[in-house]
Amino acid sequence: MDVSLLGTGLMGSALAHALIRNGARVTVWNRTSAKLAPLAAAGAAVAVSPRSAVDASPVTIVSLLDYDVAQAVLEECGSLTGKIIINTATGSPDEAASFAEWVEGRGARYLDGAIAAYPEDIGTETSAINYSGSQEAWEALSHLLLPLAAQSRFVGTRPGAANVIDAAMAGAFFNVALGAFHEAASYVKAEGVAVSEMRHCLHLWTGKLLELLQEAIDTFESGDYTTDQATLDIYTAAAQSWHQSMLRVGQRASLMAANLENLERACAAGFGDMGIFAQIEVLSTPSETTPS
Amino acid sequence: MDVSLLGTGLMGSALAHALIRNGARVTVWNRTSAKLAPLAAAGAAVAVSPRSAVDASPVTIVSLLDYDVAQAVLEECGSLTGKIIINTATGSPDEAASFAEWVEGRGARYLDGAIAAYPEDIGTETSAINYSGSQEAWEALSHLLLPLAAQSRFVGTRPGAANVIDAAMAGAFFNVALGAFHEAASYVKAEGVAVSEMRHCLHLWTGKLLELLQEAIDTFESGDYTTDQATLDIYTAAAQSWHQSMLRVGQRASLMAANLENLERACAAGFGDMGIFAQIEVLSTPSETTPS
Repeated sequence: MDVSLLGTGLMGSALAHALIRNGARVTVWNRTSAKLAPLAAAGAAVAVSPRSAVDASPVTIVSLLDYDVAQAVLEECGSLTGKIIINTATGSPDEAASFAEWVEGRGARYLDGAIAAYPEDIGTETSAINYSGSQEAWEALSHLLLPLAAQSRFVGTRPGAANVIDAAMAGAFFNVALGAFHEAASYVKAEGVAVSEMRHCLHLWTGKLLELLQEAIDTFESGDYTTDQATLDIYTAAAQSWHQSMLRVGQRASLMAANLENLERACAAGFGDMGIFAQIEVLSTPSETTPS
Repeated sequence: MDVSLLGTGLMGSALAHALIRNGARVTVWNRTSAKLAPLAAAGAAVAVSPRSAVDASPVTIVSLLDYDVAQAVLEECGSLTGKIIINTATGSPDEAASFAEWVEGRGARYLDGAIAAYPEDIGTETSAINYSGSQEAWEALSHLLLPLAAQSRFVGTRPGAANVIDAAMAGAFFNVALGAFHEAASYVKAEGVAVSEMRHCLHLWTGKLLELLQEAIDTFESGDYTTDQATLDIYTAAAQSWHQSMLRVGQRASLMAANLENLERACAAGFGDMGIFAQIEVLSTPSETTPS
């Protein structure tokens, strides 16, 4: 299959090399020529302009800084009629929606890709790219796209859906969990305990987290928050105690305070004798909690 | 080996059964007799009072509601001279310190145990109990205690050290990370995307989290925050974008806001071109950040 690729930074190069390894005929373009030599050596054709790159293949993957840069570069390409454009820039759901409208207005089908991987993970079993937008394009191209990241999926026809999952997992979950670990380590240091004592429990706690997140999704889907394990009241009392211990040794404990506030809000809303997953009911602002 | 156990709730019973399976001669006591029958059937001796339980063995494991209840029950036991007392109640580092002082004042050596496991995990490879206090007691008893939870460790001679690690891992990290996942799922719902679309990325993101936490500890130990990956400035810009996306669909995003505040504080303190782990430098209140 013929594929073009605009942008050969770390991620673009990783994508191009993986495509070449999987037998695609790849045309690459980059604003500066510095990173093109290794790709040419690996067998890629080098285009002299974005336009000649897009013209060379039915499918173009865009791996540029953001949506604005992607649009500026594609504007140099004239009509996109009959093409499939895949943009892997990181951005918000709204940016993906605007970009999709713009691309489709120029006659192409659009897939938005949100990459959950570092460049070195591209082409491996432990990477994922979520796609959203044209389901037809996904079905035509999944054989091309799955070898780039084995756990890739099509998550919805709304162009912003992939960015929603990305903001949720990379942002609201992962980045906050990572921040929480920093508050944990700062607390351990302040108590005069060696941070290295946390090392041996990491497998255990991330393993438990995986189990609980799977259980959480089951519970969100069933809506049944009853539990025979610890209730929200019990977790809230524990969080109050953890928060006090952290404050006592001079920690800001901002994440723990926000977490405690979420738990207390759930108890105040009457979920105290339910399981911890019931806290999801109180995380929207009042105007949004009205059943739709 | 002879071991006594005070308290046969879910966790106490799990500990007693695991001890019996490993060949210990176990004496159990509980305030109510309801849960004693299965243990007696498994071969445990049933004591009629806390005093006779403690007298029956050189080592007593206390599995009661909290430190106050543990002390009240041990007060019924007279002298503890020559005994080893292990208390597995959940509590703060300060409570462990006071309790240790009280136990040692009655002539016993003390081990504080913080259980990182559900009762059903006791006796398995994936559970841990952190111990702190008398190193001598740990060395004498590790052959008895390791089969209860294979990943158990002695984490320090300060009696509160096990509770410090517990507050850090179960509280500041795990409970907050779990809360963060709720904010992520609430956001996904508000965007009209099915929460089930998060399921397939859970392995990937918890796996990445394990990798990054290990790297974080290495970095905390070396103090070298330079990076060739994304800098704090870049993470802060991403967090601002995630925060805005969440607010736009009516999310409180309290944890994301606290996380963003931590990241912005780190950038303001001059760590913007360092790696994300540098945020640990700004999590204490000013009076505590003075080098000691």
